[in-house]
Amino acid sequence: MLRVGVIGYGYWGPNLVRNFMNCDQSNVKTLSDLDPKRLAVCRTSYPSIETTTDYKEIINDPEIDAVVIATPVAAHYPLALEALRAGKHVWVEKPFTATTEQGETLLEEAEKRGLTIIVDHTFIYTGAVQKIKKLIDAGELGNIYYYDSTRINLGLFQQDVDVLWDLAVHDFSILHYLLGKKPTAISAIGKSHVPGKPENTAFVSLLYKDNFIAHINANWLSPIKVRQILIGGDKKMILFNDLEQAEKIKIYDSGLVLDNKEDLYQTLVDYRTGDMLAPKIPTTEALKEEVYHFIDCINTGKKPITSGEMGLEMVRLLSLASKSITQHGTPLDIR
Amino acid sequence: MLRVGVIGYGYWGPNLVRNFMNCDQSNVKTLSDLDPKRLAVCRTSYPSIETTTDYKEIINDPEIDAVVIATPVAAHYPLALEALRAGKHVWVEKPFTATTEQGETLLEEAEKRGLTIIVDHTFIYTGAVQKIKKLIDAGELGNIYYYDSTRINLGLFQQDVDVLWDLAVHDFSILHYLLGKKPTAISAIGKSHVPGKPENTAFVSLLYKDNFIAHINANWLSPIKVRQILIGGDKKMILFNDLEQAEKIKIYDSGLVLDNKEDLYQTLVDYRTGDMLAPKIPTTEALKEEVYHFIDCINTGKKPITSGEMGLEMVRLLSLASKSITQHGTPLDIR
Amino acid sequence: MLRVGVIGYGYWGPNLVRNFMNCDQSNVKTLSDLDPKRLAVCRTSYPSIETTTDYKEIINDPEIDAVVIATPVAAHYPLALEALRAGKHVWVEKPFTATTEQGETLLEEAEKRGLTIIVDHTFIYTGAVQKIKKLIDAGELGNIYYYDSTRINLGLFQQDVDVLWDLAVHDFSILHYLLGKKPTAISAIGKSHVPGKPENTAFVSLLYKDNFIAHINANWLSPIKVRQILIGGDKKMILFNDLEQAEKIKIYDSGLVLDNKEDLYQTLVDYRTGDMLAPKIPTTEALKEEVYHFIDCINTGKKPITSGEMGLEMVRLLSLASKSITQHGTPLDIR
Amino acid sequence: MLRVGVIGYGYWGPNLVRNFMNCDQSNVKTLSDLDPKRLAVCRTSYPSIETTTDYKEIINDPEIDAVVIATPVAAHYPLALEALRAGKHVWVEKPFTATTEQGETLLEEAEKRGLTIIVDHTFIYTGAVQKIKKLIDAGELGNIYYYDSTRINLGLFQQDVDVLWDLAVHDFSILHYLLGKKPTAISAIGKSHVPGKPENTAFVSLLYKDNFIAHINANWLSPIKVRQILIGGDKKMILFNDLEQAEKIKIYDSGLVLDNKEDLYQTLVDYRTGDMLAPKIPTTEALKEEVYHFIDCINTGKKPITSGEMGLEMVRLLSLASKSITQHGTPLDIR
Repeated sequence: MLRVGVIGYGYWGPNLVRNFMNCDQSNVKTLSDLDPKRLAVCRTSYPSIETTTDYKEIINDPEIDAVVIATPVAAHYPLALEALRAGKHVWVEKPFTATTEQGETLLEEAEKRGLTIIVDHTFIYTGAVQKIKKLIDAGELGNIYYYDSTRINLGLFQQDVDVLWDLAVHDFSILHYLLGKKPTAISAIGKSHVPGKPENTAFVSLLYKDNFIAHINANWLSPIKVRQILIGGDKKMILFNDLEQAEKIKIYDSGLVLDNKEDLYQTLVDYRTGDMLAPKIPTTEALKEEVYHFIDCINTGKKPITSGEMGLEMVRLLSLASKSITQHGTPLDIR
Repeated sequence: MLRVGVIGYGYWGPNLVRNFMNCDQSNVKTLSDLDPKRLAVCRTSYPSIETTTDYKEIINDPEIDAVVIATPVAAHYPLALEALRAGKHVWVEKPFTATTEQGETLLEEAEKRGLTIIVDHTFIYTGAVQKIKKLIDAGELGNIYYYDSTRINLGLFQQDVDVLWDLAVHDFSILHYLLGKKPTAISAIGKSHVPGKPENTAFVSLLYKDNFIAHINANWLSPIKVRQILIGGDKKMILFNDLEQAEKIKIYDSGLVLDNKEDLYQTLVDYRTGDMLAPKIPTTEALKEEVYHFIDCINTGKKPITSGEMGLEMVRLLSLASKSITQHGTPLDIR
Repeated sequence: MLRVGVIGYGYWGPNLVRNFMNCDQSNVKTLSDLDPKRLAVCRTSYPSIETTTDYKEIINDPEIDAVVIATPVAAHYPLALEALRAGKHVWVEKPFTATTEQGETLLEEAEKRGLTIIVDHTFIYTGAVQKIKKLIDAGELGNIYYYDSTRINLGLFQQDVDVLWDLAVHDFSILHYLLGKKPTAISAIGKSHVPGKPENTAFVSLLYKDNFIAHINANWLSPIKVRQILIGGDKKMILFNDLEQAEKIKIYDSGLVLDNKEDLYQTLVDYRTGDMLAPKIPTTEALKEEVYHFIDCINTGKKPITSGEMGLEMVRLLSLASKSITQHGTPLDIR
Repeated sequence: MLRVGVIGYGYWGPNLVRNFMNCDQSNVKTLSDLDPKRLAVCRTSYPSIETTTDYKEIINDPEIDAVVIATPVAAHYPLALEALRAGKHVWVEKPFTATTEQGETLLEEAEKRGLTIIVDHTFIYTGAVQKIKKLIDAGELGNIYYYDSTRINLGLFQQDVDVLWDLAVHDFSILHYLLGKKPTAISAIGKSHVPGKPENTAFVSLLYKDNFIAHINANWLSPIKVRQILIGGDKKMILFNDLEQAEKIKIYDSGLVLDNKEDLYQTLVDYRTGDMLAPKIPTTEALKEEVYHFIDCINTGKKPITSGEMGLEMVRLLSLASKSITQHGTPLDIR
């Protein structure tokens, strides 16, 4: 039974508490938040959880095995460092840290002490991404051409991060997981339209050694909500629409079209060239899967799928993308 | 009565012939195409039109007032030049020419002889774009933040142009018409996934003096067809979905969200903050409007909305975008 | 402060408990359910609520002011009767009772004792139905022609009711509330496709004195989920799609089309004749509104919108529809 | 080479002329229409076709083999009778005739003379209906439970028929073709909302010997256009959305849900229980297939799929449905 302390009970915290409480191998012992009203909300639902406005009560509690950090990004590093030094395993919300240096320090600390760090890139544990991963690994898509994500909505302006670190980060992690190859350069353009606020609109391109290309359109100022990823291969193509309830993933025959005249007119009529399949996707909550995975990694010592190393890699890409934005989209080499 | 000669009867030619035939102020006298089978198709529908495989019969015919050029792009320049030198007004399909130098030469030639050039950026004449133009000019959108276009489908690989010159060109012309301001830099990333073929996937960003930004996602290898433009302002935002029959344009209250905590939780629940209006859009065929506009410009001597100058501006942007692609997206200054 | 006892903690019970707990004018004192496991679930979230498998502890508790009955339909009558006789106000889930006789007895009992009965036709309290009611009362739709509802999905086979009493009941209550006029005849056709189970597919028509008509398509065996109501008037028409997040209600100009030839061809092209407006709908939870309304009615003595009388009227229609089903759709007069 | 005379050049006539002209085994010799302007329209496109305002020139022309009748319904019978008596094969638009007696007389006349009658129930020849027929015949749907069609739009008020004879007739023919079994009773409710005009809103139910049921919702006064058919079986279910370009047919695993508690909660979460497949549908024009089929039937003497007998059966159902409407939906036995 993993005894957990949770720091931060904002937007995501309640989901974390609920999943660690519902898991039969873990328990939340203590919750801390700077706002006593948030603690009261938690106590109504979970009277067994101790609450405090002082996170140190969690860090210093020898009965707590793991610390879950769900605070603004700036606090990730100091809190995770304290927790590791107190011998706790650490669960950190994405993005891992505000800088790569911070991430590297945390990794060293965890390595030295044999502790587990997981970064909560939740998307990786969804049934949809797991299904796509299986399709890609089985070669169903053939040679993969592009990844094209649109992640826009009328969003909240976050206090501490821009739209890149808030939304595009999901695609960085999905790309990393699905393809397992690293980009060679990154180019990003971003704009802030509200004075004094971070970038709310960003377009990011990731370039690779081969002719694969990834692109992300992230926007907090769109009148409509879109969560759509296209992955194109020469055999099959995938449309992943996360807002669909029943048909999240659609798999299309690619049907590459040749340019000789005969085919041309046929295709103008035919529009689409093959079958489309929407496979059943398991609906288990991603966070539930991730909680079990975290506990399993602690018990066995293996690296989480979304390990600290992976989280650091994401911070590296985000930092470089932010730098490209300051240079109006100039593509920057990765290492 | 404008007597017209049409050169080229491929994909778009039949629409041109039909509109110049149906117009009560114009008539198609002669059609030329290198393929006698295409000419036969035309004769079945319009037995009154003379047909020939030699375009010079059109150029040299003193009874013909205007020449419509609907050939592959490479032929636009030599054909238009011959037509102008023979004293004909010229209608050229988009993109105007393959290079800016060609466009400049044609403009000089037309200027010298007092002839009219129109470039067929048809989109400008649609009811939807006209409606958006009115909304913007009336200040309904307020301060405009961004233009974000997705123009993707399982397309034909054109013989002579890449996806940029085939699809993104529409957005260049719409942007130019709607906003009437020039970008200061352009960045484009493109990939060819089929050996020996031009770029089939491209992402273009246009930067401006202020914090307005335009972005275009153009793709011939998408399993789904999307024709969607978002225009975001601080008062209103527009969704223009050209595939919708009944609700092509949706106008949303923008509802900018502040970041204090109280508003934050309210908005998570509210999702959208105001009314949405889908105004009735006239369904007159754009090409019909354009034909009348061309004739009116010839008669009065005024410049077409999509004049040769405007067409040249588009070629300038396309050329620069193509150059940026060869530099992996490096933003290039415009003049 | 209204002290409430809740009987039944199945699918809907948790929503009732949550809303009576969150309301600042009410409190749940006791919950009963035959299944101790359900009681345990409640205690985890609400440790302050007493739980019991014996509902009589609620009926006999002098500190309890009102009893909320969320059991299978067959138990509504005996439980409500006991509660009324013990002097409690009563909240009953829809449908009110299994027979009209039962409903009449409960009304008499409540009348005699000056107690309030509310039947939980939740839909009436949604922002969407409230908005439509306002539009209709303001005469915006003009003369109303029809109400056409499709309420289908791959549903659960209820233990105790058929698809009519489970789904069509919503439309009966919405119709009653929106139009405030009574049908003169009802015709229903229904089929059971799973041996030993109640009707899973039903089509109901309600006829009125004038040429207004209402129709309901209810189906538990549809591969897709639809929750769509069309209301047609000669001035405006409404589409209410309850599955839409952002545009639940769309209001269309009706644009009646005349049959002379000129108009005919124009309309074939025009498709839709006016603007469409999707007004902002408040997102307050309907159940929250209903809880306040219940308390207000108890305090002031006024009749609830969804009173026992209204609930009885619904049972009368449902019973007649069920009878029509046994007669293969023969229309039956109402009174 | 079948030489054809076409009577009537209204909404559908141009499609008929085009298909008989484009077919390599047929030719349109003469077109008649009462309106000389319509004839002029045809001559512009097909100068080789003789035109006349006197249909008798077609009937009396010994060089014409078959007469295509595309007039208002009332004229079908007298024209078809004259054509048959003149020894011509006959193509009649749907619905076949205005009464069953008329249809019977035409069948006798054709039988006596060995002539072919085809009734143009075009839908039967679409790729989508052909695909569904194959799926049903292969047993893919299992035991079929219901057919549920919604065919609504802001329509034209036809001069001569009501919404039943205009729209529901499509479903009658599709049902007949797909299932090949006859209903035992029919119930229909219809309303006319525009004074002096025929019924514009109708709901029809077809009952059968077993527990299969068919239902049709037809409406000329809907603000939105819907063309959707659901066919439910115990193995698979089909959604046929005729307005979809790329995914006209979706095939769902049925996934019947049991009512024990454990499954119940799982299903509330799962929503849909299996894969969905949208097969590629051939896009050949239905009318083209039908023209070849007509010619083949004339040459070989075999009965068309949509024979006069089938057309008469449809008229019988339509007449009975109309009668049920006058009786407010009373179900009427079929023979």
